[in-house]
Amino acid sequence: MPDTETAPERIPHGPTTDRPVRFSTLARDAGSAARAGRLETPHGAVETPAFMPVGTQGTVKGLTPDQLWAGGSRMILANTYHLALRPGEETVAALGGLHRFTGWDGPILTDSGGFQVFSLAQRAKITDHGASFRSHLDGRLLELTPERAVAIQEALGADVAMCLDHCPALPAGKDAIARAVDRTIAWAGRCKAAHARADQALFGIVQGGAHEDLRARCAEALVALDFDGYAVGGVSVGESREEVRRALAVSTHRLPEDRPRYLMGVGRPQDLLDAVATGIDLFDCVMPTRNGRNATCFTDQGLVKLRNAAHTRDASPLEAGCDCLTCAKFSRGYLRHLFMAKEMLGPILASIHNLAYLHRLTSRMREAIRAGRFVQLRMEVLEALGP
Amino acid sequence: MPDTETAPERIPHGPTTDRPVRFSTLARDAGSAARAGRLETPHGAVETPAFMPVGTQGTVKGLTPDQLWAGGSRMILANTYHLALRPGEETVAALGGLHRFTGWDGPILTDSGGFQVFSLAQRAKITDHGASFRSHLDGRLLELTPERAVAIQEALGADVAMCLDHCPALPAGKDAIARAVDRTIAWAGRCKAAHARADQALFGIVQGGAHEDLRARCAEALVALDFDGYAVGGVSVGESREEVRRALAVSTHRLPEDRPRYLMGVGRPQDLLDAVATGIDLFDCVMPTRNGRNATCFTDQGLVKLRNAAHTRDASPLEAGCDCLTCAKFSRGYLRHLFMAKEMLGPILASIHNLAYLHRLTSRMREAIRAGRFVQLRMEVLEALGP
Repeated sequence: MPDTETAPERIPHGPTTDRPVRFSTLARDAGSAARAGRLETPHGAVETPAFMPVGTQGTVKGLTPDQLWAGGSRMILANTYHLALRPGEETVAALGGLHRFTGWDGPILTDSGGFQVFSLAQRAKITDHGASFRSHLDGRLLELTPERAVAIQEALGADVAMCLDHCPALPAGKDAIARAVDRTIAWAGRCKAAHARADQALFGIVQGGAHEDLRARCAEALVALDFDGYAVGGVSVGESREEVRRALAVSTHRLPEDRPRYLMGVGRPQDLLDAVATGIDLFDCVMPTRNGRNATCFTDQGLVKLRNAAHTRDASPLEAGCDCLTCAKFSRGYLRHLFMAKEMLGPILASIHNLAYLHRLTSRMREAIRAGRFVQLRMEVLEALGP
Repeated sequence: MPDTETAPERIPHGPTTDRPVRFSTLARDAGSAARAGRLETPHGAVETPAFMPVGTQGTVKGLTPDQLWAGGSRMILANTYHLALRPGEETVAALGGLHRFTGWDGPILTDSGGFQVFSLAQRAKITDHGASFRSHLDGRLLELTPERAVAIQEALGADVAMCLDHCPALPAGKDAIARAVDRTIAWAGRCKAAHARADQALFGIVQGGAHEDLRARCAEALVALDFDGYAVGGVSVGESREEVRRALAVSTHRLPEDRPRYLMGVGRPQDLLDAVATGIDLFDCVMPTRNGRNATCFTDQGLVKLRNAAHTRDASPLEAGCDCLTCAKFSRGYLRHLFMAKEMLGPILASIHNLAYLHRLTSRMREAIRAGRFVQLRMEVLEALGP
């Protein structure tokens, strides 16, 4: 994948000192576009590359904020669509905003709600104006426009808000993707115009599928709008690892050096390594917690399925050398028992490990980038993980 | 309830220094039979009166051992019936015993399994030999005798094991209860004879319903067998608070002063206060965690139902002045949201509070006993709780 690892194109940009979030590069890898950085937000700083656990409904399922912090989480994501439907952004605002509401006083990012409208809501209709849809909870007819997505996110009060984008369902022809790019650019302009909250950053989202010209057009238009950060979207909606790599290859290096870059919805260890090599800083994905609830755990030797009978009397930890709570205290045999007995603690402990695994992986990446051996780390980890 | 609060009858007993668990009375209340004490076990000491959370299948539902400890839990209960069926006591033993298995390295008590055989298992048949039944999990035909109950508990390796007793289903005539008492006494003798593990205590269980003569006969026979501690059983199987009080009134004061006294299956704040007044030291009950999972929480002003719409925008904690994690960090509005959204964290945080509430209540009782004002505390708490 040499084309993704060349030195990134520099795009000149003004000073960022008055921005609600500030990104600084602390180290660059010699053999790839990987970078180690620091994202400062109104609720603290995050060392990058970093993985953000997903707290869909204002909670990372089964984990307290203390457990998240102890496991290495430093920034979490919450879903605008879910919170706007229940309990409603006005209720969250009345309860002091997302940080007070959730008890997580570190950095928070909210998505725009668009992805859930397209994937979860009933009978979504998309026009240039916005999306109208019916709530998957109670069938209420609702509307999500760029302006409304910004208003909801301002009420929720995360440190980082996302522009409403149009992520077309795959497979999609190039024409459909091009129209989605046009709409994404137009909506980004409207989001930028609508956004007023000074203590909240707004990120643009690059769409364009695996088409270099579309990704380039989208990135350039968004960069011209001067966002606080940029996301690469539309790469975790069912495409292959190769397609993800191609989308990244034609997107990441077009994004400004001095702004954080966020790859949405990606959480496989392999994909994190690939994406960091192209210069991505931030990730989110439900995979570690969803897999965890389903007894499937990350290890450096690949996935471990905790319901497997082989673990019944296995006194060893889920992963030797892991310093997470789960591995420090509990055996595979106990974890298997919890899943067989349908005990809540099984999903909890597996989620704790999976998140800690990804945080440890990003920590190792940061270290390797500083030490100039990211390419080597990537090869070692990919080889150990297997196919 | 003056008859339950008279000074306890002293029953002479030998030295207890060579016992696996040792109980010492640190303070006695002047106005009741309440006592503050200390139970030393192979896995640490517990200040009494104390409440033990129930970890039915080797886990207090949804909580890690760290969370239990932080919330004030010092001794937990695990269920022999459940663990013998799944994963099997031999698996627990192969994984290092209950403490290593569960990651809780404080004191643990296991029940005998009898209560679950009578309440959960299918087609239980009870003879003087023991109980035969079918597993509620897979229909396997199994047998629980006094000897087998001891063998399972020795394999599990708790600090305190319980004798197999016969707890008749209510309502039961006096004849049936008398036969259950005879069987309970005979089984206690067989348990005592079978029990060999030197680092594990064995407690006897007093049955006899609300009949003073039966309770007296049972208590005397068990005391003659010289157990490390004594439980009062058969008082949380559907009878009224008045019946519980009567059973305690005729049981507790017949148990030796220098041994711990454990009231099985009782967890209502009101019942704890009543029982401590008669000289009970230990309690267990699923109520705090089961109620918690069902959004019902203890407070000094009575039960709070978290799903109530009145809490939607309530920024105040579940209980003002409570120092548990839940009350320190989260609002009633957030807790309600978690329950409405069916998020695991709701049951977790409600369970944390309910356990902390009972631990705080027992802590206040210990303090009040030391300060000679237990009767006053009891009146105050009962009055605030309401009917």
